[in-house]
Amino acid sequence: MDVVSDRQALISLAHCVEPGDAAAGRLLAEHGAVELVRRVATGRTGLRHGDALEARMATADVDHADARAERCGARIVTRVDREWPTQLNALGEQTPFALWVTGAADLRLLALRSLAVVGARACTAYGEEIARSWSAELASQQWCVLSGAAYGIDAAAHRGALAAEGTTVAVLAGGVDVPYPRAHVALIAAIADQGLVISETPPGEAVRRQRFLSRNRIIAALGRATLVVEAAIRSGTASTAHAAAAMNRPVLAVPGPVTSAASAGCHRMISDGEAIVAGDVADVLGVLDLGHPRSPAVVSRSPRDDLDLRERVVLDAMPARGAIGLDGLIRSAGLGREDVMAAAGVLTGLGVVVEESGGWRLAPRPRA
Amino acid sequence: MDVVSDRQALISLAHCVEPGDAAAGRLLAEHGAVELVRRVATGRTGLRHGDALEARMATADVDHADARAERCGARIVTRVDREWPTQLNALGEQTPFALWVTGAADLRLLALRSLAVVGARACTAYGEEIARSWSAELASQQWCVLSGAAYGIDAAAHRGALAAEGTTVAVLAGGVDVPYPRAHVALIAAIADQGLVISETPPGEAVRRQRFLSRNRIIAALGRATLVVEAAIRSGTASTAHAAAAMNRPVLAVPGPVTSAASAGCHRMISDGEAIVAGDVADVLGVLDLGHPRSPAVVSRSPRDDLDLRERVVLDAMPARGAIGLDGLIRSAGLGREDVMAAAGVLTGLGVVVEESGGWRLAPRPRA
Repeated sequence: MDVVSDRQALISLAHCVEPGDAAAGRLLAEHGAVELVRRVATGRTGLRHGDALEARMATADVDHADARAERCGARIVTRVDREWPTQLNALGEQTPFALWVTGAADLRLLALRSLAVVGARACTAYGEEIARSWSAELASQQWCVLSGAAYGIDAAAHRGALAAEGTTVAVLAGGVDVPYPRAHVALIAAIADQGLVISETPPGEAVRRQRFLSRNRIIAALGRATLVVEAAIRSGTASTAHAAAAMNRPVLAVPGPVTSAASAGCHRMISDGEAIVAGDVADVLGVLDLGHPRSPAVVSRSPRDDLDLRERVVLDAMPARGAIGLDGLIRSAGLGREDVMAAAGVLTGLGVVVEESGGWRLAPRPRA
Repeated sequence: MDVVSDRQALISLAHCVEPGDAAAGRLLAEHGAVELVRRVATGRTGLRHGDALEARMATADVDHADARAERCGARIVTRVDREWPTQLNALGEQTPFALWVTGAADLRLLALRSLAVVGARACTAYGEEIARSWSAELASQQWCVLSGAAYGIDAAAHRGALAAEGTTVAVLAGGVDVPYPRAHVALIAAIADQGLVISETPPGEAVRRQRFLSRNRIIAALGRATLVVEAAIRSGTASTAHAAAAMNRPVLAVPGPVTSAASAGCHRMISDGEAIVAGDVADVLGVLDLGHPRSPAVVSRSPRDDLDLRERVVLDAMPARGAIGLDGLIRSAGLGREDVMAAAGVLTGLGVVVEESGGWRLAPRPRA
């Protein structure tokens, strides 16, 4: 195999590195994707599990990965692709190499205005109703509802968003062509129709216990905030909330009856200061910095309305005419290098600015 | 009228000053009770409502107050009496002048090991069951349950404590001989039988709107902690919680369904950082500094087990032989004057130390 591009190298790595492998992530940061692929292929990673990576890479038919993705209705989005949701980079060494994406919407744009709605598989009717009705309300306010397509709260959240004709994204623990749980085949197909189904494992890969936990970190990283509707103590949901809190993303938890084990994890998160109380949808919107719902007409007017403070600052720092390089933009915006790069990535994704060699310029305004 | 003692003066003032009157409380601190009575009687308080106080004092038959209390089965406990619960002094200018007390138990001792359980009159079956069962559990662990004998949560809390054959104290907004609400005549009688019924308004006085709020501050001040089971936003219960928090007493609130207006006040208190989450009785006991329940045998062994840190420090500072004066005790304990006085008062009430002219000495140990 002769890897020539970063994109090809990242896809290759996504075929052999297990989700959440921080050791491999460190090597990527150190050597870059192309060199890391060479080292994996020749058994020179220095990793204890280097043999496994080498064996997997030897059998992965990476040259036809895009074609294979296409055959199951998916596309591959790597860290160097325009559709890459830069929020995921907050995962640091555990940032996925690539995602398989099914659905017509643009993942980067959806992620800009998305929140995770997660919770117990063994939920109660109370939690299910809240997940459904709040997700419907959030979706009708143009928020994209992220979840994991599992039984219980996840499914109720997706269904609420679908019923409101909003957008919703399911992050799967196995391949996008391996809908799991099987009972949700129709639900997952509906999500792909109206939103996106994504996964960091290649098509054909089965779910595994560890992959559910790895998947949870992606849900936490993609959302601007995470809403926990019901959770038992020491649950997978608690791990999602913990991952979000570790990235300084707001976590909200819905209180419930103290007599319900399905709410005990929520109360624990609130007690521990990891989550704030979500008493209604307004509490959620308040955390998302949109205290008062805007009318759909205003929301859809311009992608600029969805910018966060950092992105607005960088946009304001762009020269009215001509291009500006990274160092110039850092000076002009008064923000750190990483913040500027992330914001510039978002602005580029939105089409507000355009990249050119070594910098960015404002995109020409569309005619009215 | 010729007032000769502080006690008589305080009783006199309790007959004419409306509960919670901070202006009168400031004058008491400035002039002392005997002088304040003189000023009230001669219209020299300088208060805008001085006329009203003067008129009330003219008609109050204070000389026979103790006899009148006795006729309705009550006794009068003033700030200078041994049974006075010194916790109430945390109310500062709003500290009651005197309390009317019905029941055989010692108010000071009960208050040492008591917590307030309060909540909405318009409670749900969920809140009622929690108030009842948790109060029963707390009472069976030798905690005295304080409440207001109102409909809803209050009544459930008292009933739970009574059913567990524990002690419970009702603080009424009107006179102790004016049970309110009328439907709770039997409940209030049972509370007096098994615990105490107390009020800062003289016998015969009716409830008034403002007196409910004043009463709430006494409930908050008497308890080591306040547990809010259910509360609407902007309710009387919220005022009790607020008063407790203002005195740095721990406030716990029980979460409930976000679909229940009766839990909205609890969630608000938690959100605002005014209350911590009470998910079970263990959370309540944890706040009371008794993380693990002690067996009743241990609890009843010695009143010293119930001392708080301040009281232990002062007890440790007592000389093994002989008496010590206030200034000596302040030096020895290394605490402030007010803390030492409060702790010495508690220790005296418990019979651990005895007062003598100008000081205290350790009480002789009871024989085994």
